[in-house]
Amino acid sequence: MFGKLGFIGAGKMGGAVARRLATGGFEVHVHDLDPAAVQRCVDAGAVAAGSASAAVKDAEVVFTSLPMPEHVLTTWTRLAPELAEGASAVDVSTIDPGTVEQAAAAVGEYGHPFVTCALGKTPAAAEDGAIPLFVGGPGEAVSALRPLFERIGETTHEFESAGAAAMFKLISNLIGMTNVAVLAEGYVLARAAGITPEQFSAALADTGASSFQSQVRLPWLVAGDFEARFGVELAAKDVRLALDAGARQGIASPVAAQGLAQLLSAIAHGHGGEDAVAVAKVLDPQGRLLGSAGNETADE
Amino acid sequence: MFGKLGFIGAGKMGGAVARRLATGGFEVHVHDLDPAAVQRCVDAGAVAAGSASAAVKDAEVVFTSLPMPEHVLTTWTRLAPELAEGASAVDVSTIDPGTVEQAAAAVGEYGHPFVTCALGKTPAAAEDGAIPLFVGGPGEAVSALRPLFERIGETTHEFESAGAAAMFKLISNLIGMTNVAVLAEGYVLARAAGITPEQFSAALADTGASSFQSQVRLPWLVAGDFEARFGVELAAKDVRLALDAGARQGIASPVAAQGLAQLLSAIAHGHGGEDAVAVAKVLDPQGRLLGSAGNETADE
Repeated sequence: MFGKLGFIGAGKMGGAVARRLATGGFEVHVHDLDPAAVQRCVDAGAVAAGSASAAVKDAEVVFTSLPMPEHVLTTWTRLAPELAEGASAVDVSTIDPGTVEQAAAAVGEYGHPFVTCALGKTPAAAEDGAIPLFVGGPGEAVSALRPLFERIGETTHEFESAGAAAMFKLISNLIGMTNVAVLAEGYVLARAAGITPEQFSAALADTGASSFQSQVRLPWLVAGDFEARFGVELAAKDVRLALDAGARQGIASPVAAQGLAQLLSAIAHGHGGEDAVAVAKVLDPQGRLLGSAGNETADE
Repeated sequence: MFGKLGFIGAGKMGGAVARRLATGGFEVHVHDLDPAAVQRCVDAGAVAAGSASAAVKDAEVVFTSLPMPEHVLTTWTRLAPELAEGASAVDVSTIDPGTVEQAAAAVGEYGHPFVTCALGKTPAAAEDGAIPLFVGGPGEAVSALRPLFERIGETTHEFESAGAAAMFKLISNLIGMTNVAVLAEGYVLARAAGITPEQFSAALADTGASSFQSQVRLPWLVAGDFEARFGVELAAKDVRLALDAGARQGIASPVAAQGLAQLLSAIAHGHGGEDAVAVAKVLDPQGRLLGSAGNETADE
């Protein structure tokens, strides 16, 4: 059994994981800049840590769940000297393998293993532990952490290294979000050809164009529902990091690069806080085609 | 019940449909420039027509299944005056809505309805009638043709017009083939990050990157099996036609346009006759990453 766990960053996904650990009987000390985010974990049985250092002190395992790679790197660089003897560092953020290597080096300098445990699916699924995990790091540390992974996720996919696990998660978002971008293009083409949203949706499911994204996000596009489940800005971040990691190895990914261009264009048009499927809006900025799809009664 | 049916173009998909009609008890007169293609239909109970005109003469319904839009247009332009009174024209090719309109005008001049019946899935599925159909055209003609559609396909998706049905089929291939192109990019990125084909395939199925294409074509990519089920050249043709139809209406589809660029690059590299998943090869022209995936024993 584990003693104290530290948890830094209790946002949508991080908070869900911290609560999942707390409700599973683990002693989780949570820190976040937002007191309300901490409180949501305390309500589930976690302990509020007054600072990142307080969360780390005497913890056997310390988790980070932070928005951007630079946050992860500076956090571990600062906290590495404060980690308890034998403690493991576990990052559940979605970041690039280059940053993972740097963060691993920062904690490695003080003798601690660094493990990536990237999280699949959604915050709602994470609350129930119904998510896949993409895990990599030193074998002994990963083995020791298994009881925690079993509480956090449903399935654990193991990779050779922390960097490979982080890269896998980025790649899966690169593919998924580019699938969304081209799905949006097909939808706009169909609407322009006079195909109704219902005809398009029903027929598409019967073709080689069907995908997780067409099953999940096409209904939102048809309904004109752009509430962020996975927002344009996060999608753009992940595709950007994956492309950059590839480019550093001399690998071009031109279709995904155009997918990123569309996501960035959506941000430039003011849709950064909407769901990734809002990438469709830049194809039809006057809402001539999407407007009528999202608002049948007004336009048709 | 129907009298004579004419069928022009007995290639992979067309031949399968003609045989399906013949084995269903319909009297199908088949013409193709390749006598062997005709013979494969005769073996299934069809009648060999010595020419396109012979196939058309006295036929109640005439089908075309031809490779390119220009073939469809010239065929109907030439045959329109020869169609029997009351005969319907049915095209099962994958062509653009502009050409559909022109072909419809050509037969319409002689009083005949033109119906699109685009075919989903593969030739093997078509032999068994296990394919979806994307149908559009004048309502009365479509209704009268239903018994034929029920023999040819499993499901019939109806659209407002022949052009809309043709466009839908192009759009579904535009999305599906671009999904393949970005899947290939993700796979190459993963291999470069040291992720094994098996890890990638297993983990991807658990993410928002999964799709019909990842289920069907990723195993071929992993196995280094590039035998054409749906070839790069056909894929490029369909994406090109969809993009062109959109551009004529002022609609850009930049992600799919980059997908087309990758398909064209694959053709330029000599992979036009391979399966669409060979689009991966242009990302790794020296086979440094795909080679080891396709040939584990030699390279690893």
